[in-house]
Amino acid sequence: MNQQFNFLSDGGTTTVQGFQAGATFAGMKTFTEEKRDLGILYSELPCTSAGVFTTNEIIGPSIALTRKHVQLGAVRAVVANSGIANTVVGEPGRKDALEVVERTAAQLGLAFEEVGFLSTGIIGVELPMALIRAALPKIQLSSSGGTSFARAIMTTDTHPKEAAISYDYGGRTVTIGGAAKGSGMIHPNMATMLCTLAADAQVDAGLLQQTIKYAADRSFNMISIDGDSSTNDTLMIMANGAAGGTTITEESFEATLFRDAVTELCIHLAKEVVRDGEGVSKLFQVTIERARNDNDARMAARTITNSMLVKTAVHGNDPNWGRIVAALGRSGARVREEKLALYVNDVCIMEDGLPIPFFKEAVVLQMQTPDVVFRLDLNLGTATATAWGCNLSEAYVTFNSAYTT
Amino acid sequence: MNQQFNFLSDGGTTTVQGFQAGATFAGMKTFTEEKRDLGILYSELPCTSAGVFTTNEIIGPSIALTRKHVQLGAVRAVVANSGIANTVVGEPGRKDALEVVERTAAQLGLAFEEVGFLSTGIIGVELPMALIRAALPKIQLSSSGGTSFARAIMTTDTHPKEAAISYDYGGRTVTIGGAAKGSGMIHPNMATMLCTLAADAQVDAGLLQQTIKYAADRSFNMISIDGDSSTNDTLMIMANGAAGGTTITEESFEATLFRDAVTELCIHLAKEVVRDGEGVSKLFQVTIERARNDNDARMAARTITNSMLVKTAVHGNDPNWGRIVAALGRSGARVREEKLALYVNDVCIMEDGLPIPFFKEAVVLQMQTPDVVFRLDLNLGTATATAWGCNLSEAYVTFNSAYTT
Repeated sequence: MNQQFNFLSDGGTTTVQGFQAGATFAGMKTFTEEKRDLGILYSELPCTSAGVFTTNEIIGPSIALTRKHVQLGAVRAVVANSGIANTVVGEPGRKDALEVVERTAAQLGLAFEEVGFLSTGIIGVELPMALIRAALPKIQLSSSGGTSFARAIMTTDTHPKEAAISYDYGGRTVTIGGAAKGSGMIHPNMATMLCTLAADAQVDAGLLQQTIKYAADRSFNMISIDGDSSTNDTLMIMANGAAGGTTITEESFEATLFRDAVTELCIHLAKEVVRDGEGVSKLFQVTIERARNDNDARMAARTITNSMLVKTAVHGNDPNWGRIVAALGRSGARVREEKLALYVNDVCIMEDGLPIPFFKEAVVLQMQTPDVVFRLDLNLGTATATAWGCNLSEAYVTFNSAYTT
Repeated sequence: MNQQFNFLSDGGTTTVQGFQAGATFAGMKTFTEEKRDLGILYSELPCTSAGVFTTNEIIGPSIALTRKHVQLGAVRAVVANSGIANTVVGEPGRKDALEVVERTAAQLGLAFEEVGFLSTGIIGVELPMALIRAALPKIQLSSSGGTSFARAIMTTDTHPKEAAISYDYGGRTVTIGGAAKGSGMIHPNMATMLCTLAADAQVDAGLLQQTIKYAADRSFNMISIDGDSSTNDTLMIMANGAAGGTTITEESFEATLFRDAVTELCIHLAKEVVRDGEGVSKLFQVTIERARNDNDARMAARTITNSMLVKTAVHGNDPNWGRIVAALGRSGARVREEKLALYVNDVCIMEDGLPIPFFKEAVVLQMQTPDVVFRLDLNLGTATATAWGCNLSEAYVTFNSAYTT
């Protein structure tokens, strides 16, 4: 990571200047012990906003409305609920989303278009609007409410996921904080994954959109828990300028620095999401080097992290290079068997397309390291990509066969 | 199924006129109790041949050579080994494949190009040529040797998979028989799946290729066990004309009948492959109706059968329509939520995009039927497709984490 970035200990969305948050329990979430299911993240100052959203053809009306407002570019508050996804419920879902946003805007004294609404949870069930109407005014916003908000978006997550990163530039400190939720159904192209970022730089809306797309493609779009993606995935960012300084535009020297900081933060949160996936006990990383082009590198890295046979091999600490090579071969990426090298952490187990007789116990030991890295050198070009996956465990199956609709 | 077709009890490759088979134990297969690992299927008469092969960029040299010979169009014998896939072993793999085909051709008195070679098993290990040289001459061919051959291609399969189908046309009976092996790594685009078909019709080589492609796209390319596909997948057919009659060409009335018989046989064998997948206890079927086009229908059916969340729901007999709809939504197929209907067997649980409150116990009972069918009516066009998948069980994970390289 760039030496200029610092992760702040216990950082989150409200570590960022000018952001407040809070949450309450409306009574929607019955399937965890977590007693917060409705939260708000709010900027005291106007913001520019940007985001990337699920590519699923079935999209929840909360997310559809939020996407519209985020694209208008001035969202400065987000209300979020967990327990019920407000998805596949027909017309009532659209009416309820409108009402929640209207009520939140009125409560915060904002315009309708300045508010987004994120919903996650079970689908096919209408929002209990009476509960939401009663609970919304109870939310107390404060500059230490970030964790409360992070808890309010959890579904089967085992803990809230927050982080913040900062850098110094132009005589000021810029901080970017985020709250994410994940668990099952996490997959490239945004899965039941919500992540809201807050930044105190002033950022041009167009650049902010480029930045969030760039970061998503290197973080949340490169993780996989089970290959399923959901109807409500969202990664969004609000930038309020509270740190001072001039507006960051495409022409600014700072643009790359800001982009890289957002990307590092997203990678950190994305890995946390994988690590906390249902039944997950182990993260692994796949890095593709010297692919023919970026698309090949990304396809190869993602296909290997999604392979059930690779996931089970990781679960069993089995250095099963055959499964890795077979997944690489079917990824769609150009591969020349005779040029291929494969490393487990830094131990080379295949060179020039031939397995190197290795001391199995030593490689099994490498497999047991917490974040084992498979590095594949395709030796065909200059493109690189990294993806993250997790073991497939008996616990995942048990959890997901018992989990009720 | 067409009334004109009959599945023959205990049918297989040598049920077909003019085909002989046999197998022996060379000593390559250590991971099953199955003591046959080298077999030959042979036609007494010249054949036309056709096939479809793995699309994996890493392809085993046995399969690469077989593909070449099959495409020349006159393969009439196949030698097959299990235990070792002869893949990712560099130049020796190519030399060994050549030698096995040369020796088999000499033994049978055939030309080099008339022989194919199929290998399946672990990869990265060279073929034990000394064992193969010693074992090959011991193979006794007979017209009752089909089951022996089917056993010789098994890896982690729990039983041999064979079938034969026949129809009457033009005053004669045409029979087509097949032997298949499957187990882990089964996925669309041909996975560690070998299937050899024998037919006693006389078929033009061009038509035979169209026929096998048509059948593959409706059978083996529509099944999934774990989404992984392998380096050695093969579906091939040899047609020897022993049943008499004129050559079937594109212009023949019989062409459709022959094609449909081959397709029915392939669907039967493909479903057997799924049913016998590692850790599989339950098959399920996904039928997409009224999709915008064929490609949409196929993508949708395959994406749903591949979804780990759907597979675990099937395992737990959970009528989790939300996961089915979410998988449909991300499949790439055009979907209009408000037009969608979903049936479990014949029970409608969603109509016009809205879940129908159902008596859960009744639908759970439907889920428990051995071959549960999910039927999705997209209500957007006229295209239909069917795919088959299996439950994801704790046993799959245990099996594949312990399975050694």
